[in-house]
Amino acid sequence: MFPWKSTLVIDNLALRAKYLQLTDQFIKEISAGRLAPGQKIPGTRQLASLLDINRKTVIMAFEELEAQGWLDIKSSSGTYVSMKLPITIADNITTSAVPYDNFNIRLINNYDFIPAYEPIPPASINIDGGSPDYRLAPIDWLFKECRSISKSKYGQRLLAYGGVKGNEDLRQALTKYLRETRGMTLSKENILITRGSQMGIYLAMSGLLKPGNNAVFGSTSYDAAEWAASNSQANIIRVNIDEEGIDTDHLASICKQQKVHLVYVTPHHHFPTTVTLSNERRIHLLQLSLKYKFIILEDDYDYDFHYASNPILPLASLNTGGNVIYIGSFSKIFAPNVRVGYLVANKEVIKNLSRLRRIIDRQGDQIMQSAIAESITSGELNRHLKKSLNVYRQRRDSFSKLIDSEVSDYASYKLPEGGMAIWCEFKGLQLAQLKPIINSKGLYMDIDPDLSVRFNALRLGFASINEKEQKKAFEILGPAVKQLASLTSF
Amino acid sequence: MFPWKSTLVIDNLALRAKYLQLTDQFIKEISAGRLAPGQKIPGTRQLASLLDINRKTVIMAFEELEAQGWLDIKSSSGTYVSMKLPITIADNITTSAVPYDNFNIRLINNYDFIPAYEPIPPASINIDGGSPDYRLAPIDWLFKECRSISKSKYGQRLLAYGGVKGNEDLRQALTKYLRETRGMTLSKENILITRGSQMGIYLAMSGLLKPGNNAVFGSTSYDAAEWAASNSQANIIRVNIDEEGIDTDHLASICKQQKVHLVYVTPHHHFPTTVTLSNERRIHLLQLSLKYKFIILEDDYDYDFHYASNPILPLASLNTGGNVIYIGSFSKIFAPNVRVGYLVANKEVIKNLSRLRRIIDRQGDQIMQSAIAESITSGELNRHLKKSLNVYRQRRDSFSKLIDSEVSDYASYKLPEGGMAIWCEFKGLQLAQLKPIINSKGLYMDIDPDLSVRFNALRLGFASINEKEQKKAFEILGPAVKQLASLTSF
Repeated sequence: MFPWKSTLVIDNLALRAKYLQLTDQFIKEISAGRLAPGQKIPGTRQLASLLDINRKTVIMAFEELEAQGWLDIKSSSGTYVSMKLPITIADNITTSAVPYDNFNIRLINNYDFIPAYEPIPPASINIDGGSPDYRLAPIDWLFKECRSISKSKYGQRLLAYGGVKGNEDLRQALTKYLRETRGMTLSKENILITRGSQMGIYLAMSGLLKPGNNAVFGSTSYDAAEWAASNSQANIIRVNIDEEGIDTDHLASICKQQKVHLVYVTPHHHFPTTVTLSNERRIHLLQLSLKYKFIILEDDYDYDFHYASNPILPLASLNTGGNVIYIGSFSKIFAPNVRVGYLVANKEVIKNLSRLRRIIDRQGDQIMQSAIAESITSGELNRHLKKSLNVYRQRRDSFSKLIDSEVSDYASYKLPEGGMAIWCEFKGLQLAQLKPIINSKGLYMDIDPDLSVRFNALRLGFASINEKEQKKAFEILGPAVKQLASLTSF
Repeated sequence: MFPWKSTLVIDNLALRAKYLQLTDQFIKEISAGRLAPGQKIPGTRQLASLLDINRKTVIMAFEELEAQGWLDIKSSSGTYVSMKLPITIADNITTSAVPYDNFNIRLINNYDFIPAYEPIPPASINIDGGSPDYRLAPIDWLFKECRSISKSKYGQRLLAYGGVKGNEDLRQALTKYLRETRGMTLSKENILITRGSQMGIYLAMSGLLKPGNNAVFGSTSYDAAEWAASNSQANIIRVNIDEEGIDTDHLASICKQQKVHLVYVTPHHHFPTTVTLSNERRIHLLQLSLKYKFIILEDDYDYDFHYASNPILPLASLNTGGNVIYIGSFSKIFAPNVRVGYLVANKEVIKNLSRLRRIIDRQGDQIMQSAIAESITSGELNRHLKKSLNVYRQRRDSFSKLIDSEVSDYASYKLPEGGMAIWCEFKGLQLAQLKPIINSKGLYMDIDPDLSVRFNALRLGFASINEKEQKKAFEILGPAVKQLASLTSF
């Protein structure tokens, strides 16, 4: 006899109604072939007693199963698994321990080149790779605004499907904002609202690069941008970088040897080394782009954070013949989780990439976008930027003083003109060994395995922690570095 | 002489400071090669008078330009464009009217197969293709929850970067929710939070299909899923559909002829025809999947909306050997703009696809995800589902009565057991001609050019408009259909 009692188990504490639990289990057993078409099922009275449940529960389950076509209830002779169902050979069904073994699919790649995310314990101090301090941002203002937009007659419509290029208010506000802050002349049709700069990078790499196309990156560069190019199966070509940013003479010699399709740059502050691309090289890069017909993908994620003079105009603001695709973000202004950014390009590129975006996630959060538009037009954004620029400048200075006083024997750096991180080289230390030492004391740092080995350097984010937290961090980091140095010297 | 006056134009009304406007324009002229290295610039007094601006503005601009390295100010002899800059030949720089002409890039495709979004005028009535009514949803509850989460000590951390698989609270709540509503047994590691079902579809198609792989769709199917497969350059193979859903015997014969890699299905209610996949075919489909080793991509976007008996268990809840990837969504429950959904699969698939997601947009909105988790655990979601299920059932019935009374001579349909739309065939009418007639009267409908020609049928969404709005819609639609019929019969 079928092992009714051990197979059909009712959880008295579950929220799902008992008769539905029984229904589910019958369907699973029938689908798996363990109950075959035509098989006779015990009567309701017998089953209720076997399972120690109310007979009414069994009756309701049988009615449901009959309505759904799994059982035939014949008043004369009893209840049977429906003969209309195909026979399943139970042996066919095994749960594969090794994934993909059951599939014809063979992964192009298993994305192992993209590291897993490691969460940081709540009570610890974190020197990140250069994130904003969301505690300074008008987050509550944003959510209040979202709420009031979603309640208004006009704003309520933003809850429905909308245009894939993004909220009209934000695109309109951005044309003005980009003109006034970056000297860009453009119309709404040049703007696609994205989810942070990452989606802008992905759309450009995925929509424009074919397998085998050549994409140039600095010899150190933003890893998640390289991953997106790798995902498109582009060839990654590396151009030298130095204290003026990417070496455009080297780029010129690369272009002479092979067709270059795209050059990814963060000219405002090179990632990860934080240097600003010099004017000579900016002009040279644009000239090369026109001569050799490559796209410049300008990722200007930290334009708003420049402490020296006024921020340098983006490449995209110069006369570029349409060869520059420009990416900006609000995630560095508000908070990493506020994933709103934009991609600026010629209309045809925007049209194509917005259709690609259509199949990725249909549309962004129009309500949040509208709230950000309001922050631009009301001046809230500017007020916040002014305040945070001041705070971050102070934090950069206090952080650099701590490096000087606590780890100066081992560390060398140049004070960055902008951004949220200091690029700091540690002479002779094996940085990979730093992690367990500081983690055990409650300090976490973004130790990039590649950069820490190739350059013995780290990006030390100063913006997201205040002076008190910085001090605490160095109370752990200072001794840890000294400990590591003493280990290394033996 | 350089045409200073016509080139350098200061906008007195712009928010950007005048000296910065002047700075921007100098940089543009120098970059474009119209001002060459070594060229002498007029004195501050002369330029101020030429441009009719304050001399101090010019001095500040020159200081900024010198600090940025664009100008050399020699106190003895005057101001010059920096000799350190490379010479640009102005003729090189032309703004391309034809996009992509300046690029080596040749688009894989220009995404013309994805239609542009057409906005609907505010005051009009809209019979969509089957959307929820966001006016019924607890949107204000959600935003209130978001605000309070973002202010709490714990929730504030969700503003930072987090895990790419999605908010932990929501993944935890979903394991319980999917067990209780769908009889699924799974752990957090089987769940990746996405942005609506569309991102789940995109991740699966993009991460698992190689160019030339065979993807099977119903002979009519969800277009945005097909677009995602086309984007991966998969071959689209069509399997017949009828009143029981996709024809699995036909699928079996396809599998005998060629390797099938993925089968996309919406078994709960076939898109667009709204029929439910029969039990026989469900079991047959699972058997075929195991025999021929294809992935079943089960898009269960409207599981929660079934009016007949209890909803039918998803394929993924049966014993599948891990061959089913399951996609669900909250967008149909709350509002299209609330783009939160989930993908359920074996751990290894989740690991790989979450890394692909990492390079697309880094992460979803963790605050909104946490609010949705709270809606599950607090019972808010269930209360809303119960209410909307009742309202939608009534709206389905009232809509069908209006078809019967207003257009029954031309229309035939079967009352759907669930979902948000009625699949309605119109005998002999040329539906493409309906659009201008109804649009001019303020009624908008989702007239799919492909379906309306191939099947002479439309998906009529009944859920998003109340009975009063439905009546108004048919006051326009009824006469329009009659008008169209009289045109066609001649």
